[in-house]
Amino acid sequence: MNWTLAQRAQKMNPSVIREILKVTEQPGIISFAGGLPSPLTFPIEAMREASERVLKDDGKAALQYAASEGYTPLREWVAQDLLKQGMNVSPDQVLITTGSQQGLDLVAKILIDAGSRILVETPTYLGALQAFTPMEPVAVSVDSDEHGVNAEDLRAKVGTGADKARFVYLLPNFQNPTGRTMPEARRAAVAQVAIDTGLPIIEDNPYGDLWFDQAPAPSLSSRHPEGSVYLGSFSKILAPGLRLGYLVAPKALYPKLLQAKQAADLHTPSFNQRVVAEVLKDGFIDRHVPTIRALYKQQCEAMLAALDREMAGLGLSWNRPVGGMFLWVQLPKGMNAVALLDKAVKKGVAFVPGLAFYAQDPSESTLRLSFVTATVDQINTGMAALAQAIRESL
Amino acid sequence: MNWTLAQRAQKMNPSVIREILKVTEQPGIISFAGGLPSPLTFPIEAMREASERVLKDDGKAALQYAASEGYTPLREWVAQDLLKQGMNVSPDQVLITTGSQQGLDLVAKILIDAGSRILVETPTYLGALQAFTPMEPVAVSVDSDEHGVNAEDLRAKVGTGADKARFVYLLPNFQNPTGRTMPEARRAAVAQVAIDTGLPIIEDNPYGDLWFDQAPAPSLSSRHPEGSVYLGSFSKILAPGLRLGYLVAPKALYPKLLQAKQAADLHTPSFNQRVVAEVLKDGFIDRHVPTIRALYKQQCEAMLAALDREMAGLGLSWNRPVGGMFLWVQLPKGMNAVALLDKAVKKGVAFVPGLAFYAQDPSESTLRLSFVTATVDQINTGMAALAQAIRESL
Repeated sequence: MNWTLAQRAQKMNPSVIREILKVTEQPGIISFAGGLPSPLTFPIEAMREASERVLKDDGKAALQYAASEGYTPLREWVAQDLLKQGMNVSPDQVLITTGSQQGLDLVAKILIDAGSRILVETPTYLGALQAFTPMEPVAVSVDSDEHGVNAEDLRAKVGTGADKARFVYLLPNFQNPTGRTMPEARRAAVAQVAIDTGLPIIEDNPYGDLWFDQAPAPSLSSRHPEGSVYLGSFSKILAPGLRLGYLVAPKALYPKLLQAKQAADLHTPSFNQRVVAEVLKDGFIDRHVPTIRALYKQQCEAMLAALDREMAGLGLSWNRPVGGMFLWVQLPKGMNAVALLDKAVKKGVAFVPGLAFYAQDPSESTLRLSFVTATVDQINTGMAALAQAIRESL
Repeated sequence: MNWTLAQRAQKMNPSVIREILKVTEQPGIISFAGGLPSPLTFPIEAMREASERVLKDDGKAALQYAASEGYTPLREWVAQDLLKQGMNVSPDQVLITTGSQQGLDLVAKILIDAGSRILVETPTYLGALQAFTPMEPVAVSVDSDEHGVNAEDLRAKVGTGADKARFVYLLPNFQNPTGRTMPEARRAAVAQVAIDTGLPIIEDNPYGDLWFDQAPAPSLSSRHPEGSVYLGSFSKILAPGLRLGYLVAPKALYPKLLQAKQAADLHTPSFNQRVVAEVLKDGFIDRHVPTIRALYKQQCEAMLAALDREMAGLGLSWNRPVGGMFLWVQLPKGMNAVALLDKAVKKGVAFVPGLAFYAQDPSESTLRLSFVTATVDQINTGMAALAQAIRESL
């Protein structure tokens, strides 16, 4: 039997990172690789109580087919919660998605034709590149620094006519993979480019609530609501195994995204939506999220201290995130992160080589470290092992 | 702000059926329209106990990110359960999906290029046409009768070279919308066409377990495993609000479907997968599904009796399904089902006009009736009202 694969399927290759992560899941490995939230932060008891209540009080509706838009009380909660991002949206603009990853899939279906240019950060979230790929765009990297994309390079790359970029995909808060955050001035400049050129913004904000000491500046979408799609997630503030996210779209675009959602999986599980709406009642998030922030801040500080201690004099540099889950390391010039990973795994520690995160011209001497899954003790042990692997690679 | 929509998005129109179903959801309407399983069949107490056990014993894993393939014990259960369809598959061939609707989306991404011919039944499942549409196929209707597609017309429409159909999409058991079932001889003939011509089969089987007196003949996939993708669902034997389905693919195709799945939503909710695996332990389905069959058989018989009683002499014809959720009505020649629906809703009863279910040449004088959501009393009242609306349309 010879299956005729679609062109896009022929181009899809097994994810490099997927194969790498398999190695890092070996028992005994201290992994800074995966982007797994700490299970210590999962509100298991609140979920148990809410599941019980939902099935007792509202079981038939929770287990029945439901509207593709999502569960109304959850959409209302989202609209209310977004006020803190400076966004004033109607619940009618909120579409509940099966994780925010699905938001990327829907956006791709609606906005990308084969050969369309799209603009992304350097580096950018690998999962977004994977979600966009089936629609066969040409992903163009915009020059970026520790504050996110360069606004002038963004302006230069928008293009015009049939060649005009369909959108720019941005993660302004504690970006995956770098952990960097766009400051106020950069947000203003980037939003201005979008407004001046009519360039749509796809703003992905799964980590925005995970700030350590101070909330980040207002969202890009709040500055250009008619030209932005905003993606949010419950994965990092409640639990990823629920697969609950949402998107907020301007009224001009919402109906098309809704149709794509309906065709994709009819609706996000009604049970999960009701359980989470039940958990969120009575200000749960305002009590719960500060405990996540405190834990991740402590682990980030432990990792930064370990880097300062273990990597002194080895020629590395790294950033100092103010929230989120990741930090970004520049290896000594010429050191290959994939080769280093091989050595590191033998010493019992893992990370993700940075080259997985580039749409163009991957840098081979960068790597991503997650500080949220491992304990402080594991961070100390793992960083010493990583330093040893680096010394042997010099 | 002018968004540049992708070509496929421009072609997507608001679903006719979606708008119709909104009308039928008015309070006080007896609806034979929706395909909603009876909530009386939802195993609420078993779900409550399983949710409690999963969160108590395995909460951290149930709420964490998980493998895109799905939860291993659930995949093993599926492989074991498929033995009764005559299918001998490895758990490695099972991919858990967010409802079987998602299986259609993944198949479309992998197998359809813009302009590809695909073959479907006359009529066919509307949701499949919607799932395929974003990939811009040319859907071709194969002549069909009360036993499903005509094998000779299927052979004639396969085509060759670049024009060869990418697959035929078939619902052999208690088809949506017609309720018809392919008998053994038709299955053998259709499978032979697929084998002779190398035509892939996409076999959708959400209703197969809902037989009244006798299980249907073995699946098409069991006859041509290397050339078939099989889609299954927990929506009709447990509850649709969980959004749990699965596909079974030959080893040659599985990796591409897995990549598409990962890009679409990373994985199906781990919580839901574990809860359902817990419910399914110890032969629950073998005790539970017979109660659904008995209920639906009783309601189907009530609807058939009401049709015999109320519609005598009106010039309608209908089939007598032996399982599933739907039956199919042919109105008197020239009677328009959309106009009839308008009259029927005023009398307090609703159905779905058949024209929604055709890829080509829609028939305006057919309609679909669901016998699973309404009670026997409602069926009797609703059928009398529908007969009155028909009399007034003659």
